[in-house]
Amino acid sequence: MSRYIALEGIDGAGKTSVLVALAERLEGEGHDVVCVREPGGTAVGESLRDLLLEGPPMSAWAEALMFAADRAQLVEEVVRPALARSAWVLSDRSVYSSLAYQGAGRGLGIGRVRQINEPGLSGTWPDMVMLLVVAPEAGLARQEKEDRIGSEGSSLLASVAEAFERLASREPDRFVVIDAEQSLGLVVDQAWAAVQL
Amino acid sequence: MSRYIALEGIDGAGKTSVLVALAERLEGEGHDVVCVREPGGTAVGESLRDLLLEGPPMSAWAEALMFAADRAQLVEEVVRPALARSAWVLSDRSVYSSLAYQGAGRGLGIGRVRQINEPGLSGTWPDMVMLLVVAPEAGLARQEKEDRIGSEGSSLLASVAEAFERLASREPDRFVVIDAEQSLGLVVDQAWAAVQL
Repeated sequence: MSRYIALEGIDGAGKTSVLVALAERLEGEGHDVVCVREPGGTAVGESLRDLLLEGPPMSAWAEALMFAADRAQLVEEVVRPALARSAWVLSDRSVYSSLAYQGAGRGLGIGRVRQINEPGLSGTWPDMVMLLVVAPEAGLARQEKEDRIGSEGSSLLASVAEAFERLASREPDRFVVIDAEQSLGLVVDQAWAAVQL
Repeated sequence: MSRYIALEGIDGAGKTSVLVALAERLEGEGHDVVCVREPGGTAVGESLRDLLLEGPPMSAWAEALMFAADRAQLVEEVVRPALARSAWVLSDRSVYSSLAYQGAGRGLGIGRVRQINEPGLSGTWPDMVMLLVVAPEAGLARQEKEDRIGSEGSSLLASVAEAFERLASREPDRFVVIDAEQSLGLVVDQAWAAVQL
C-alpha cells in the first residue's frame, strides 16, 4: 500500500490543486490524511522556507543543505508519526525536487544531492511519486507568484523537467507520470486511479 | 603553509580570546587576516545562526544540515576568496565542531555527518585545527552566555570533548592540541608557536 505520496513537477505544474483534490477524495472515503509541503510544515521549516524563497543570495550548496534540513525536520516531526498511525501523507514536493532542482538544475549532481539527503531521511522516502508533466513555458505561464527559485526562468525549468523524467524512468515502480496539460479533472482522475492501485 | 586555521574545543574553552590574540599578532606582522565564526559570518549564515542558537526545537539531523548549509555558504562567500588572495583565515569553529557535536554528541555518527558536509566544502577543510582542551566542568563555568546547544550541560560536553580528542588522534598532522586550562598568555604563546611552524 502506498501511503506516503509526493506530488512532483516544475513550478506551475498544478501540484497543489491535485493534492487538494486527492486529499478530499481520500477523506471522503474516511481516511486520515495529512497534507504537507516542502519547504515548510514545521516551525523550523517555515523559517527555512522564508529564507529559501525570499532570502538573500546563497550558494547552491547552502540552498541544497537548507532544503535537506527542512525535509529532515518534516519527516521526523510530521511524516513518520503520521505513517505510524496509518494516516496517508500527501506531500507537495519531496526529496525528488531537490534531486531535480539542486542536483540537475543547479548542476550539483543528483548523486551528491542524494548523499546529503539520505542520512536525515533514514529510509523514509515517498512510496509513490506522482510526476505532473507540463512544458516549461506552460508552467511559467501558470505560476501564480514568483519566488527566488521560480523566478529563474525557463532554462532552469527545462533542465529540471528533463531531470524529473530521467528520475521517473530510473524508478518506474515508484513514479506515476501524468500529462498535466490536460484538464484538472482528467489529471485528478488519473492520480486517483493510481492511488487506488 | 597553514593559512586556514580553525580554533576548536567545547563551549568555554577560550577559542574566541585565542583567535583575537592570534589575529593581532598576524596583523602585527603585516599579514592580511580574515576572522570568521561558525555559524554565521554571511547574510544567510547569521539568519541560520539565530535559528540554530535561539530557534524552536529541531531534530538532530535538521540541526546538522543547517550547520552544514551555513558552512557551505561561508566557505564559498568568504573563506575561499580570502585564501585565493593569500589572506589568512582564522575560524571560530569549523566542520570539526559538527563532527564532534552532531556526530558524537548527538549520536548521528561522525562518518554520516562528514558525508553531509563533504560535498558543500569541495575540499576546503582547515589546514590546521587548534584544539583547546578544558575539562567540561571548567568549560561550563567559563561560558558567558548559554544558548540552545551550550545549555545542554556536561553530559553532552563530555562526549563532545572525547570526540575532539579522538579526531585529533586520527589526524595528528592537522591538529595542534593545547591545554587551555593554562593562562591565556601561555595558550596564545603555544598557538603562536604552532602557526609559525
